[in-house]
Amino acid sequence: MEDDTYLSYLFRPKSIAVIGVSKTPGKMGYEILTNIVKYGFQGPVFPVNPKYNEIHDIRCYKTVLDITDDIDLAILVSPVERIPKIMSELKAKGVKVAVIVSGRRGNISSLPIAELARKYGIRILGPSSMGIFHSRSKLNATLGPLSVIEGNVGLITESRTLGMALMGLATMEGIGLSTVVGLGDKLDLNESDVLDFLMKDRSTRSIIMHLERISDPESLIDVLEDSITSKPVVILSSERDVREKLESFNGYIPIVDDVEQALDLALIMAGKSIKGDRVLVVTNSGGASKLVIGISNQTKVRLSRPSEDLIDQIRQFVPEGGICSANPIDLTGKAGTDIYRGVLDVALSSDDFNAIIAIYCETALSDPLRLSDMFYELWDLYEKPIIPVMMGGERSREAVLRLRHRGIPAYSSPCRAMRAIDSLVKIFLFSSK
Amino acid sequence: MEDDTYLSYLFRPKSIAVIGVSKTPGKMGYEILTNIVKYGFQGPVFPVNPKYNEIHDIRCYKTVLDITDDIDLAILVSPVERIPKIMSELKAKGVKVAVIVSGRRGNISSLPIAELARKYGIRILGPSSMGIFHSRSKLNATLGPLSVIEGNVGLITESRTLGMALMGLATMEGIGLSTVVGLGDKLDLNESDVLDFLMKDRSTRSIIMHLERISDPESLIDVLEDSITSKPVVILSSERDVREKLESFNGYIPIVDDVEQALDLALIMAGKSIKGDRVLVVTNSGGASKLVIGISNQTKVRLSRPSEDLIDQIRQFVPEGGICSANPIDLTGKAGTDIYRGVLDVALSSDDFNAIIAIYCETALSDPLRLSDMFYELWDLYEKPIIPVMMGGERSREAVLRLRHRGIPAYSSPCRAMRAIDSLVKIFLFSSK
Repeated sequence: MEDDTYLSYLFRPKSIAVIGVSKTPGKMGYEILTNIVKYGFQGPVFPVNPKYNEIHDIRCYKTVLDITDDIDLAILVSPVERIPKIMSELKAKGVKVAVIVSGRRGNISSLPIAELARKYGIRILGPSSMGIFHSRSKLNATLGPLSVIEGNVGLITESRTLGMALMGLATMEGIGLSTVVGLGDKLDLNESDVLDFLMKDRSTRSIIMHLERISDPESLIDVLEDSITSKPVVILSSERDVREKLESFNGYIPIVDDVEQALDLALIMAGKSIKGDRVLVVTNSGGASKLVIGISNQTKVRLSRPSEDLIDQIRQFVPEGGICSANPIDLTGKAGTDIYRGVLDVALSSDDFNAIIAIYCETALSDPLRLSDMFYELWDLYEKPIIPVMMGGERSREAVLRLRHRGIPAYSSPCRAMRAIDSLVKIFLFSSK
Repeated sequence: MEDDTYLSYLFRPKSIAVIGVSKTPGKMGYEILTNIVKYGFQGPVFPVNPKYNEIHDIRCYKTVLDITDDIDLAILVSPVERIPKIMSELKAKGVKVAVIVSGRRGNISSLPIAELARKYGIRILGPSSMGIFHSRSKLNATLGPLSVIEGNVGLITESRTLGMALMGLATMEGIGLSTVVGLGDKLDLNESDVLDFLMKDRSTRSIIMHLERISDPESLIDVLEDSITSKPVVILSSERDVREKLESFNGYIPIVDDVEQALDLALIMAGKSIKGDRVLVVTNSGGASKLVIGISNQTKVRLSRPSEDLIDQIRQFVPEGGICSANPIDLTGKAGTDIYRGVLDVALSSDDFNAIIAIYCETALSDPLRLSDMFYELWDLYEKPIIPVMMGGERSREAVLRLRHRGIPAYSSPCRAMRAIDSLVKIFLFSSK
């Protein structure tokens, strides 16, 4: 089998067998089948369990061997001790790729799964995989939630349960996913194999990798060195070993232990890149200005002073008492959508800055949703990224989510936005070395 | 006037005059009057503006001097240049306390407001104050949102616009406020005066202070040394000067530049204190366990091993493949409400630990809302704090908010919970020195 054939079976199967299905909600064999069917997988699905004749109104087979059609992808949720026998049946049926969802991580070394995989020529994801999600294939063969926002962030996770929660959290945080891959125990396919595929997947523009150990550091660094300039990666890990194994990688790869920060960084990395470290902050709050200046000192972000020319152009829009000759530019609490728009158009057209952060503290004077529509327009109009920060109550939250659903890196606090843009600046600084 | 009389006029006025009201939504003079009326202030409210006869169906007065009743508190939203004249009228009317909302911070030094305040014997909050909120007095005389969750966190802010956004964000994050005080320019009342009051306010159990400068470091340190062991404070600031001026304070006071972190810490500090640094983590995810161990190494939290006795008691509840002889205890993804309940009852009754973090990664197996009800019960039943972490989709978010509305420090990610409990441990370590 050629190198990418098995990956196309894995991510773009034409048919799926789910072995070890259940009729009991909450059981893995129920949840994963239900997700596949309800998410709208287009090809035939073959449930397998000798106990049932049908499930979800789909014919249920006694064994894999009873299925007469071809099977591109097998998903195993059976008790682990049955896996060797099922693998021999998969071999007999000519199945080339299997996702083993069952098994508890670190607990299945007694079974000869890796050996059988090699012997039978079957590529294995797992065991203890959380499954696989690929939005373009309408494939949600995971234990995670059914409602996922489709987008450009790829997620690779070793942990099954944490991965499920992460999928849910991404949706709550308004972040669209292209792909989710549960690595589990990595008995066969490892982090490098999957990362390499996601690096080539056009629907994926940035990647979060949850790692507890690196199976093959050399391969991983090879993949990163090949591709990270075109597709950024953030690693979610608090393992010293992971950090140490990546020390020899000559590039920028953030390693964070905060799930929300991982999502924040992946979101901005999936958007526009920047071509310099000069960032202009525009705000309606002097208090936010001061906070941002302090935070920027811990980052590589350069809040340089606008040129006299730019200051002159901005001045006309700034209300009395505002500040236009510094960075941040302070539009005062009186600033509404039109004032922001005037200043941002000028700033986004200027060569002084490589990106703009627009901070809006919610006031009674301007509607967060109107502002977010304007930010969306600007994101489309200009090549340079504009990073909206909208901080306040229900309508500000809604505005941030609405922007995020459109792929725009919007944040609910200055600190989160600054940390995120800091990662873009670091990507630029490394790539321009 | 005695020291606390003016403060009781400020926080518990029987009547309020609002000077410089407006009928234009979005104007400060409209928003603050509307908030006072709609939030349900119990006493008489006297709007003042020579242009109107009534506003919101309330009689509007030409000047303060036309009001025949007593005025406990005056709130000024008039243009700053009129303030000296209004102050002389307030003096004539016998008003003792005024909140000056108008004025742009740092821009009003040309007016003799501080001098007039001293001469007339009027205590001033502001100028450029965001106003005052005191839930017990049904007083929302702020420019912030009308919908506020009433709770135990006090908020003191120098910045008007940032303060408004913070009030909104607190509500979005499910955090209940007892008091909000806009310090503004601190021409008269400063951070120490207000902090001292909040330290004595029984509805306030922890305090967030947004500070850009400290008017009177000695007084502030005095207040902190007197009271911080009974009522913790977190400072929101990124100013080096604030940090330096507090260096001589002999106690623990976190200074953060992240608004969400400030809220996270204030929430846990408003709850139960702890009497040691030993924390047990119980989780349904091995991946979360690993993350938590890494994070704990950056904190003062001690994840000590449970005693053999406790392990024996816990073992009966732990599903196959779980881990009960380590910290975190791993209940596996199969753990539902009953399994958590069994383990948590035993752990909360044990002397091995000073607090428990219960991490739940959302799975299809257990309902976040049922779990959150159980966490609530345990919070009530035991003296020791239980810190729930519920990570996942919509229902997990709802569960976290429901717990927070009841004052329980629940979090949506392991990292946020660990940082929060770290602050409790540090309070304990300082207080036991």
